[in-house]
Amino acid sequence: MFFMKQNIYDNDTFFNGYSKLRENDGSANDLFEKPALFSLLPSLENKTVLDLGCGYGEHCIHYVEEGAKRVVGVDISKKMLDVAETENSHPNITYLNIPMEDIGGIRESFDVVVSSLAFHYVKDFEALVADIYRLLNDKGVLAFSQENPLSTCFTTGNRWTKDDNGNKLFANISNYSVDGERESTWFVDNVKKYHRTFSSIINSLIDAGFRIDRLIEPYPSPEILKKHPEHEDLLHKPDFLLVKATKVSGKF
Amino acid sequence: MFFMKQNIYDNDTFFNGYSKLRENDGSANDLFEKPALFSLLPSLENKTVLDLGCGYGEHCIHYVEEGAKRVVGVDISKKMLDVAETENSHPNITYLNIPMEDIGGIRESFDVVVSSLAFHYVKDFEALVADIYRLLNDKGVLAFSQENPLSTCFTTGNRWTKDDNGNKLFANISNYSVDGERESTWFVDNVKKYHRTFSSIINSLIDAGFRIDRLIEPYPSPEILKKHPEHEDLLHKPDFLLVKATKVSGKF
Repeated sequence: MFFMKQNIYDNDTFFNGYSKLRENDGSANDLFEKPALFSLLPSLENKTVLDLGCGYGEHCIHYVEEGAKRVVGVDISKKMLDVAETENSHPNITYLNIPMEDIGGIRESFDVVVSSLAFHYVKDFEALVADIYRLLNDKGVLAFSQENPLSTCFTTGNRWTKDDNGNKLFANISNYSVDGERESTWFVDNVKKYHRTFSSIINSLIDAGFRIDRLIEPYPSPEILKKHPEHEDLLHKPDFLLVKATKVSGKF
Repeated sequence: MFFMKQNIYDNDTFFNGYSKLRENDGSANDLFEKPALFSLLPSLENKTVLDLGCGYGEHCIHYVEEGAKRVVGVDISKKMLDVAETENSHPNITYLNIPMEDIGGIRESFDVVVSSLAFHYVKDFEALVADIYRLLNDKGVLAFSQENPLSTCFTTGNRWTKDDNGNKLFANISNYSVDGERESTWFVDNVKKYHRTFSSIINSLIDAGFRIDRLIEPYPSPEILKKHPEHEDLLHKPDFLLVKATKVSGKF
């Protein structure tokens, strides 16, 4: 690997801001991303699971509760895994403190690879999905969420055009067609994200040998909007993209 | 079918405006959409081809030149097919003046179904892809272009945020998450288009039994930009989405 592996999560400012965000109820993650991600998973009964960017290990524990016989949680942040070991340890879970770019060194295979909101931090998506393909058993499932391309494309300026009362009228989309690095401020300056178009993401998975099974771009139902009107802007621009893909060996 | 089949192409105002557009050289269609669509096609040597929304039949003639032994060109517009019969007739081509919604009545099967910039006028996409699936031979290919979801989502207001010199800064995206009818003005008022998100389009194809093979969202290379700087806005917002999918029988 010839590029820097980014570990913003061990920056103190970031860590504290992120911890607060995760405590909030009614977050977009809890309401939309997590249910959508879990809906893409096959039965985990007696399965082996690799969780890429596992953070505090909350999902890892959930996968064990769903019947997984072994879960490996990978994260680049030692601080996050320290919390995971304390709060979400289990005999069936192993936490591994390596960057996602190094998972090629893992010497076991998995029935399911899952990742929540981490892939947009990885520069070389082709290398990542090639690694995942190798780590999966035949007919193994990859399910991941990432920031929606309509969010990651953002380059500079204002994210929204608002009316005089501050209501969001339009999401401002710029440079959608141009894959590559984006810098943004998320608790700390210069968090690097990597924008990829819908077609780039899907084609990379297909080229690696995956069959595309399902896409989800979650948005609020009228019922959720009534309770959480603050998420109305998801009707204009989805925050998340979720993908389910299956490893299919040979020609299909 | 319980909805109106739209035939804007037989409206005189529309027909004249559209004819002029198609005469232009350096149009986005010629530079981006057509090459991308043709790049998705398999060898047509000795193949049967169904062209949905064939218009003047220019593509039909091309498919014959590429070796197709039979091409059926379907269009809702009698006026367009009159031109097609005059300018692009060939013993291997049959033109058929029916709406795309009625192709279920066609009593032959095809190796390739292709469609250029027509699907966004069809209300019931699930019914359309189910019809196409039935009309395709096993391992048959569907290749189509349509307006990009970043274009079809547009509801009201201005399509672009511009700076004081009129340069396009942002594409204004609204109601992307909300599938359904959009009205717009394209030579005539109230042309009805149907917006569908990326995930809606892809999931409908998967649910119909298709394997997704390739997506393209064309944008200009630096070389093309130098010759055609007027297409720079495609870097912000692609006009087209192209999809290649294959009919795969049974479980795969």
